[in-house]
Amino acid sequence: MAVILHDLCGADPARRFSPYCWRVRLALAHKGIAHEARPWRFTDKAALADTGTDKVPVLRDGETVVHDSWAILEYLEDHWPGAPSLFLGEGGRALARFVAAWSDSVMAAGIVRLIVSDVPAHLAPEDAAYFLRSREARFGKPLAEVTADRDTAVEGFRRDLHPLRMVLRERPWLSGKTAGAADYIAFGPLQWARCVSAFPLLTPDDPIHAWRGRMLDAFGGLARAAPAEDLT
Amino acid sequence: MAVILHDLCGADPARRFSPYCWRVRLALAHKGIAHEARPWRFTDKAALADTGTDKVPVLRDGETVVHDSWAILEYLEDHWPGAPSLFLGEGGRALARFVAAWSDSVMAAGIVRLIVSDVPAHLAPEDAAYFLRSREARFGKPLAEVTADRDTAVEGFRRDLHPLRMVLRERPWLSGKTAGAADYIAFGPLQWARCVSAFPLLTPDDPIHAWRGRMLDAFGGLARAAPAEDLT
Repeated sequence: MAVILHDLCGADPARRFSPYCWRVRLALAHKGIAHEARPWRFTDKAALADTGTDKVPVLRDGETVVHDSWAILEYLEDHWPGAPSLFLGEGGRALARFVAAWSDSVMAAGIVRLIVSDVPAHLAPEDAAYFLRSREARFGKPLAEVTADRDTAVEGFRRDLHPLRMVLRERPWLSGKTAGAADYIAFGPLQWARCVSAFPLLTPDDPIHAWRGRMLDAFGGLARAAPAEDLT
Repeated sequence: MAVILHDLCGADPARRFSPYCWRVRLALAHKGIAHEARPWRFTDKAALADTGTDKVPVLRDGETVVHDSWAILEYLEDHWPGAPSLFLGEGGRALARFVAAWSDSVMAAGIVRLIVSDVPAHLAPEDAAYFLRSREARFGKPLAEVTADRDTAVEGFRRDLHPLRMVLRERPWLSGKTAGAADYIAFGPLQWARCVSAFPLLTPDDPIHAWRGRMLDAFGGLARAAPAEDLT
């Protein structure tokens, strides 16, 4: 198969939980690009030895290697121009970059401190050791302490999602009438959380919760079929 | 003149300070649409008696009346299709709505609690009385108390602007290679603050500060020429 995505997994190769890999998987589905989403673990640096990076997602298209989820989305848009557009024009491409900045700095940064302590249980032993070492260094404390106040901290996280909520009150998708790159970018962190943690990030009456449900059902239930902990 | 914008002003008719009116003024300039930006004060309900709203911006295009800054931007895009595009495609239009939600709920909501006490000094007496009554009811306290901690509260505001900063580190405009609706939408609250308050919202080393400077210089310095307090 010509297109291969190196896709972060847990001890169970079927448990895929990278927010950035999920962005790419949904973009590949959107474009209808046949591919292999090949499981990759944090400590499997050998599989990426020829790629110029040690992090996934990495896309291989024949001899071409592309890394960084944003670069991959642009590559897919530019190299499969006949397939449905991810951005719907240059304006959409430009502002999807703002959505990515918001998703990274508000959604992903907010979620990590609510669920990071739930990740290691899903990892193979050597990956768990790497994850604990690197994340505890980042936070400067044990991961259990990072998430200790999450029952109250989640309220602030939910407030911070308000711009997304405002748009989803008006229409089904962030990208407009149909889902697009901005939806996959914003959904990635929520799918990551869902795959490793049962902690309820969203309340059932939140328009973001309903949108997440539509994202889970998209492309024949691609994201819903993934092994997950939060089944709401 | 066929196109008229009712544009919020202070005691000095030249002091225009509505973030939502600024969005429209810059969009009109972007499209190159000749128009009259007619001064309007909070208590001048008579001027809007035939419009179906009591708030500006209101745009009159011959017999057509459009209100709400977002609706006006869409109207300009759709009725002047030959002029430079505000959105650069349907994807850009859809995601500019997200930028507006973010600008309203993060930028404008953050700015109001830092500068609201500086507004009344710029208003005609009857407008100042209206403004104090309505805003003190909204905040539940005197406006001086709302902004009392602003020297420290501004730090949180600056952090909240991070998604915009991330994009502006990469390129000159939020909308991409050229300015567009998303830039005008995000700039509106900063221009509002600048016109009524000398309080420094941004540090000079912030990429957002440099972008604000480019916005002030756009269209022959339209925004920079406006009577203002923050002259950095």
